[in-house]
Amino acid sequence: MSEVGTLKSIAVLGGAGKEGGGLALRWAHAGHKVIIGSRDAQRAQDAANEINAKIGGTNASGAANGDAAAQADIVVLAVPFSAQRATVESVADALAGKILIDVTVPLVPPKVSRVQLPDGGSAVEAIQKLLGEGVKVVSAFQNISAHHLTHLDETIDCDVLVCADDAAAADEVVALAKEIGLGAWNAGVLANSVVSEALTSVLIALNRRYKVPDSGIRITGITPQ
Amino acid sequence: MSEVGTLKSIAVLGGAGKEGGGLALRWAHAGHKVIIGSRDAQRAQDAANEINAKIGGTNASGAANGDAAAQADIVVLAVPFSAQRATVESVADALAGKILIDVTVPLVPPKVSRVQLPDGGSAVEAIQKLLGEGVKVVSAFQNISAHHLTHLDETIDCDVLVCADDAAAADEVVALAKEIGLGAWNAGVLANSVVSEALTSVLIALNRRYKVPDSGIRITGITPQ
Repeated sequence: MSEVGTLKSIAVLGGAGKEGGGLALRWAHAGHKVIIGSRDAQRAQDAANEINAKIGGTNASGAANGDAAAQADIVVLAVPFSAQRATVESVADALAGKILIDVTVPLVPPKVSRVQLPDGGSAVEAIQKLLGEGVKVVSAFQNISAHHLTHLDETIDCDVLVCADDAAAADEVVALAKEIGLGAWNAGVLANSVVSEALTSVLIALNRRYKVPDSGIRITGITPQ
Repeated sequence: MSEVGTLKSIAVLGGAGKEGGGLALRWAHAGHKVIIGSRDAQRAQDAANEINAKIGGTNASGAANGDAAAQADIVVLAVPFSAQRATVESVADALAGKILIDVTVPLVPPKVSRVQLPDGGSAVEAIQKLLGEGVKVVSAFQNISAHHLTHLDETIDCDVLVCADDAAAADEVVALAKEIGLGAWNAGVLANSVVSEALTSVLIALNRRYKVPDSGIRITGITPQ
């Protein structure tokens, strides 16, 4: 395993979308090599070109999902819930020994302000079960506004809860979150991802009720480290 | 229904325990008539006497759970998860037309830092189903430290998420929370209680990992009202 703080190559599957694109932009800006993954390699390359133009660099490249995952040290899954399982299955061979950061939020349209987790709890636990112990699945970033991520000068007033059964993998993702200006916390085992997955619907409910664009959460009672 | 902001009589079932006792103390101190409920009427009366001594008043009284619920405008359920359903069944007849505030956290010892919600989601939804539409079940207060509640001079750095299918009932509980110095938000439908019920285990995990006594959450992005 690479050490916390060293630069990594990070594949962002779904990186041509808003949330994945925002994370990819921020990591590329922080100096990481980022490989945008998409089902369509050309679409991935176009998104990478946009990121490179924004940061004035060449850290981003694009590839089909499987190739992107194969090239990277760390793989981020930022696809819609409906595509979560199929995407993971399609790249499973490239994940052995790596960290997979799952950003998926199990929203069930049209009632996206109502928590509707899949039977048995968090969606990410099913992914860990599918992949087995050879992949370190980490849950994170579900509650961060894509809009804020894509504006590099904005301070993001929302903490990231990071959950994983491998505590060292969680700590590594906490460090990756802090590198892009986010508050982040190791929030325990992967089962605890119920909170971050469900919280997105609560924040949508708060946004609607209180007529704000981006509610979030901060953890209190711990001095940021 | 009484208006938000008018003084209510509030029964706190499990009010001889720490969390319920802390809420009862704060509401009695704020001027509400509080009826401590317990399976043991004498134990309830003893707890009420302690509250009256602390506040220098007579707002608190004690009774067996059923009598306490019958006397009150609003009923609070603050019992251990293992006693939740039986307690509700024992007082169901006294709840018709009232608000029932469920504070229950579905912790499953010994792994209390692991989210282990009951099958199908939040525990409070099963209580609403049991009672039917004639009772306005509201979920709240799961994440507030009992220790802080019992120290009247302490500012509590944790917000309350209030969930209910009856939005007016949720707003009434938001007001009751604010009266005792808490930040509180109407967080949507009762199904969204998944977040507050699961969050307690996450906060326990954070307390252990970061060696702090009382982590909490604050909602960001909305100006407190």
